[in-house]
Order: sequence, then structure tokens, then C-alpha cells
Amino acid sequence: MTNLTAMGKGAKAAARALTRLTTDEKNEALRIIADELEARQDVVLAANAIDIENGRKKGLTDSLLDRLLLTEGRIAKLAADCREVATLPDPVGSELESRMLPNGIRLSRRRMPFGVLGVIYEARPNVTIDIATLALKTSNACILRGGSETLNSNLALVNIIQGALEKVGVPETAVQYIDNPDRKYVAEMLRLDEYIDLIIPRGGHGLHQLCKEQASIPVITGGIGICHIYVDETADLVRAVDIIENAKVQRPSVCNALDTILVHPTVAQELLPSVAERLAKSDVELRATGGALDILGQNGHGAKVVEAGPDDFSTEWMDYILGVKLVDDLDEAIDHIQAHSLEHTDSILTNNWQNATRFVNEVTSAAVFVNASTRFNDGGQFGLGAEVAISTHKLHARGPLGLEELTTYKWIGFGDGHIRP
Amino acid sequence: MTNLTAMGKGAKAAARALTRLTTDEKNEALRIIADELEARQDVVLAANAIDIENGRKKGLTDSLLDRLLLTEGRIAKLAADCREVATLPDPVGSELESRMLPNGIRLSRRRMPFGVLGVIYEARPNVTIDIATLALKTSNACILRGGSETLNSNLALVNIIQGALEKVGVPETAVQYIDNPDRKYVAEMLRLDEYIDLIIPRGGHGLHQLCKEQASIPVITGGIGICHIYVDETADLVRAVDIIENAKVQRPSVCNALDTILVHPTVAQELLPSVAERLAKSDVELRATGGALDILGQNGHGAKVVEAGPDDFSTEWMDYILGVKLVDDLDEAIDHIQAHSLEHTDSILTNNWQNATRFVNEVTSAAVFVNASTRFNDGGQFGLGAEVAISTHKLHARGPLGLEELTTYKWIGFGDGHIRP
Repeated sequence: MTNLTAMGKGAKAAARALTRLTTDEKNEALRIIADELEARQDVVLAANAIDIENGRKKGLTDSLLDRLLLTEGRIAKLAADCREVATLPDPVGSELESRMLPNGIRLSRRRMPFGVLGVIYEARPNVTIDIATLALKTSNACILRGGSETLNSNLALVNIIQGALEKVGVPETAVQYIDNPDRKYVAEMLRLDEYIDLIIPRGGHGLHQLCKEQASIPVITGGIGICHIYVDETADLVRAVDIIENAKVQRPSVCNALDTILVHPTVAQELLPSVAERLAKSDVELRATGGALDILGQNGHGAKVVEAGPDDFSTEWMDYILGVKLVDDLDEAIDHIQAHSLEHTDSILTNNWQNATRFVNEVTSAAVFVNASTRFNDGGQFGLGAEVAISTHKLHARGPLGLEELTTYKWIGFGDGHIRP
Repeated sequence: MTNLTAMGKGAKAAARALTRLTTDEKNEALRIIADELEARQDVVLAANAIDIENGRKKGLTDSLLDRLLLTEGRIAKLAADCREVATLPDPVGSELESRMLPNGIRLSRRRMPFGVLGVIYEARPNVTIDIATLALKTSNACILRGGSETLNSNLALVNIIQGALEKVGVPETAVQYIDNPDRKYVAEMLRLDEYIDLIIPRGGHGLHQLCKEQASIPVITGGIGICHIYVDETADLVRAVDIIENAKVQRPSVCNALDTILVHPTVAQELLPSVAERLAKSDVELRATGGALDILGQNGHGAKVVEAGPDDFSTEWMDYILGVKLVDDLDEAIDHIQAHSLEHTDSILTNNWQNATRFVNEVTSAAVFVNASTRFNDGGQFGLGAEVAISTHKLHARGPLGLEELTTYKWIGFGDGHIRP
């Protein structure tokens, strides 16, 4: 019987207990989780086998089944990740600033946990371990709701985590999982504002809309991007082909992969055929419009070229597809990006100082690059160590959400009998 | 005819134009607003006279009428405030960090405006100037919705601001006012997520609930606090009386004023009569329960004592009333605060190092003090220069919202042809 209110109360009590743990104690819990993952991998693999079997019956594609699959090797990797999180610096308790006020009060701004995180995600079971360990490291309790395809695997993993928590004296309600796949519990979770402090949805546009419409709890959205590269009239075109290829095909299924290129007309004639030839090697389909379509022609220099439809520049492809459009100048490029981007990641390729400056000043995306691939908007690449998601939200944290971004802060003032005049 | 979509579009276009202004240009606009306020004060005073007249007819109290009233002196103060905002540092464009990644990309995190702020507030017309100037200084456009009692004054003020904006070439849609007092426009504003980036509600519990229920836009709540002082068994009781008096009566109508004192039984017999005697001078009514009620008795050492009702410890008084309760130890004090506080401001009076440490670690309010009045949770006191509100929100900013808190950030990466390996 799923009782979200009871889960919320348990999480809130656990959150209070978590604030009393030292970093050493949290790291010990993380290492125990790693050990238990390895010691009890048979249980996890058996649960995962059920999910895989169910997925086959439901006709999931091989690539999706592969995302669900756990193996001895992948469990070893999960255990290694837990141990890695144990080695990262603990942001809780660190001070963002500390100063003496003129009246002698010592004032500081100190990082603290949010309290209870509600995380909604899909597919891969490793996310369960990722989120739970990052939450634990930052002294946050969490209530998890994963995809139904991995229910058995997730429950086995949460069971291991809870066992490890118990060993270090943390209430097992610090990490809880909504085991009922009924979607009504997602909606109920979004209204549990008495107990959940922050919702992190990791999923597609539909989930984001649901959160926007229904949540009475603050939400950090992210993980969806329509990413642009603008190639201006001064760009190095040889490098441009490399960067466009990298941004598009290195890993097309992720949110910082390239969706649209905007090209200045004076370089389009030279650049577009080279881009088409290069991308043809990875079977990328080009969706082109106007002058870009004219240049690429029907044969597309080896690549498949399709006339772009009305929604093609508002689509996150997650696939081997690229939108192509000419823009007359920087203003039109920025206008297009501001109108179509989801404020994730955009890049300009240029050798013009003023264009670079205006682009980084005026494009409001979470990450803006000059002469680099969009694929760099990533916690690992930014040296943050681990990430829960890539935020496109304007409130709180933007870009990769690492450990620090899972904390908020409070002001602390040490007085000595101070009263306000 | 009120058309919020048109206002939203105008604000979004203005926000883009604001990102192109230099700090000098913004400061010039602020000084022009100040000049115009003084030059056109007759218009403002005439509009305000209508509001005051309407308020009298509606039977508003003298103290409320005084809050609505503008005078030559108050307009001069508003003009001075505008000039003061012009002298403050501009957070936009400042970098939170800047470093070279191992691969040679120069990565920085740079403050940027939110875009469009939606601010809902009540009563005093000076808030219109405060918000508009702080928004302008941080390159945010704003859509304002003030209380209906000050509609005429607010429209006159916004008219002056828009005239000043025009003089420096900023679209007047950078500062707009919803001139229709129909409450349905508040609800509509809360769903204008296509155009408004952040809602700041300055009002009571009802407005906060409305935002929580209805808003599809991120909201920063604040401005409501149930503030506690816990006096433990080691506190300096002479200072305790001074601090309690200061926190309660220095300005009872504000959100950081004291609402409840929690007292350790071993000092209650000595402390409570002194507190009652002192607060009797300001006609403070004590709402006491249990052992505290027994000690204070019916005569209350000169103060009016009433047995606390079931909701009295969940009430923000905004008045000369104070809840009084005994708690057996620090745990019970923290439990009470965590159950009743709205995470605004709480303070412990103690000479015990461990109690002070646990209190600041475990109380999760936006500001936590040791041996100081709750009244210090304030932008001016913290040296932030100006504040839009005091946030109790966990996402983004907590405590006083100054200029920096009206900005978000983006990551900027300068590469040189970088592709991700």
C-alpha cells in the first residue's frame, strides 16, 4: 500500500537525522553501500533479469534493453562510483562568506542541505545509485520515482542502500522509493510540499510540463536542450566541420548534443558541403530550409537532405538529425536562438571579437561557448566530479548540478547580546 | 484594456534591450528617475491625494492611510533612494568563478539578469520605486501589481519611471504596471510562464498559497516569519530581557519581529517575571501555556497574560503579542521551532558552546542567530545596501534579497576549436 504522506514524514525525520552526521560518517555509509552492492550483486542481477524479461515481452528495443541491463561489470562500476562520491569534498557546512559586521556580529553564509529531494527519472537503474549517493553525501533525504521498466532492479538497489544506512545508524527512510508504478503517485508527489523541499524531474518535455502545471514544490528543470551552433562569416571553417561533427555525432542521445546549425551566408557555400560530406559518414540527416536547402541541393553531398518542416527548429532531435538554416547576421542568429533554444547550450564559431562578446552577453542559455563544441556543458567536463542533471532553470543552479548545487544556505550570526538600534 | 500577453511580450523585448545597457547608462536612468520624481512631484502628490481620499471613504485606519501617504519629504526620500541605488555596485556581468579547464577552455560563471520579474505587493507606493529601480539596476524588466489602495499613486510613479527610461533609450515596457485591480489578473500573471521568469510575491499567507497553488513560474516566497528566541539554562538573563524586548517591540509589524519565546524551566522562574515587567511598558500581551502560564500567573507582573490557544504558536503576530512556552531541553526547543517556524529567523540565547553549535547546525531557518535579536535579518543590517524582500525560500536566495539575488548566472566557455574527446 503506497502512502506518500507516511513516506514524506519518514523522509523529513531522516533529513533531520542526516544533518547530525559528520562527513566521515556519510563517507562510511557510501563505502558500505559499495561493499554491499558487490556482496549482494546476485540479488540485484536476479531482480534485473526480471525487468529485462518483462521488457522483452513488452517489445522494448535492444538499445533500450541495453540501457536497463545490469551486469557484474556495471555493478562493479556502480560500486566504484559510490566510493568516488565518498572521496569528493562535502559542501555541507562550508561557508560562502564570513565577515564581521560593523556592530561586531560575526555573520556567515553556510551551506546546508535542502532537506528532502523528490527525484523523478526514467530507465537506467544506475540513476538510482547516482541520486541516492549524491543526496546522502549532501545530507539530503530523497524520495525516488524511477521508470516502471526498472522497478525490480531499483527496489533491489534501494534495499541494499537502506541496509547500508541502517548499519551506520541512519534511518532507512533517508532513501525511499515509490514502488507503485501508477502515474497518479507522480502527481501526488508533486503536491507533497509539506515534506518535499525540491523536485528534480529527469525526463522529457511531458514530465516538465506536468511539473510546471501541477507542482506546489519548487522544481529544478533541465535535461532538455535545443542546442545551436552559429558559424559566423569569420569562423575557421575547417575547425567548424570538426566541432559540428563532434557536437552532433559524438553522443546524439544526450541533451547537450547539437540540434541546429545557423550559418552566415558568406561562408555557407563553402561550409555546408563539407559539413554534409562529414556527417554523411555517420548517416546524419539534414533538415534544411531556404538558402541552406538550395546550397545542399537534393543530393546533399552524400548526406540525406530533407526540407525542414515548421517544427524542425523547435525539436530536440536526440538522434542523427541536424537542422540547417542561414541567418543574415549575428542579430538574426541571436534572435533565432532566443526564440527556439530551451536555454541549455549554444555556441558561436567566430574569429570576430565583437561577435563573440555580443553572443556570450546576449544569449541567455545556461552555457554559452565560443569556438567549442556544445558537448562541454557537463559536470565531468567542468570538473564538478558528479552531476544529478543539467539544469536550464534560472532559479538556484544552472548547468551541471553537482554536489554544491544540492545544497542551499542559511545566514548565521554570532552576537554577544546584540540588539538592533 | 488589460492585456497581459502583450505586456509580457513587451517586457521580454525590453529585457533583451536591457542586457545591452552599460552600468553607466543604467545609473544615468536611475538619476533621471530621481530628478523627474522631484520635478513632477505635484503630479504624484495629486494622484496620491485621490488614493488617500478613496481610502478615507473606504474607512481605512489612520495607520494604514499613513502607509499610503506620500509627502514632499517622502518623495525626496524616494529620489534619494534612486540616487543611492545608482551608487551601488552592479552585479550583472561579475564572475562568480573563472578558471582554465585542463583542456584549455577558459570557463567562467557570470551573473546575468533573470529577464522579466513579476512582483506582487501591497499598500505602500514606495515599493513601486524600490522594485523598479532594483530591477533596472540588475537589467531585469518588471511587471508590477500593487495594492488597489495605491493604484493612482503607483500609476503616476510608473509614468515618471517610463518617461525617464525613454530619455535613455530604454523601451518603456521595461517597467510596466497592471492597472486593472481585478484579482483575476494576479492569477493570469502567475501562469504567464512564457514571458515572466520569476515571481516575487510580497504579501501575506493567502498570496503565498495562491502562488504555490497556481504559479507555473518559479516563485521566491518570503516576508512571513514566525520567529523564535530560545533562552537556555545558561543564558545571561539580563541581556535576555533586552534582546527579547528589542526583537518584540522595536518594530512589531515586520517579518523578523519576535513571535514566540521558548524558555528552559531552570531559568523561567527568574526570567519570565522580568520579561513581563519590561514588555508591560509597551503593552505587550503574553500568550502563555503550561508552566509558563503558572509562573506568569494571572496578574502577569504588570503584563496582560492570556492562556495560549491551539494556534497561537503557529501565528505571526505582527502586533504587540508574544507567545511564551517552557521547553525541557534543546531538543524540544529545536523540535518546536522546526514544527512551527516558517524558516525565517530564530535565535538562541546561551553561554553553552554545544547548545549554540547544535542550534545553528540543526535549525534550518534562513537566518539563525546566537545571542542577538531576530531583527538583524535585514539587507541593511547585513550590509547588502538594498533589499526587495526577505526570502524564506530554499531555492536560489535565502534571507535578504539584494541586488545580487536578483541575478542568475550562465556558464561561459572560451575555446579555440575544442571538441570533446
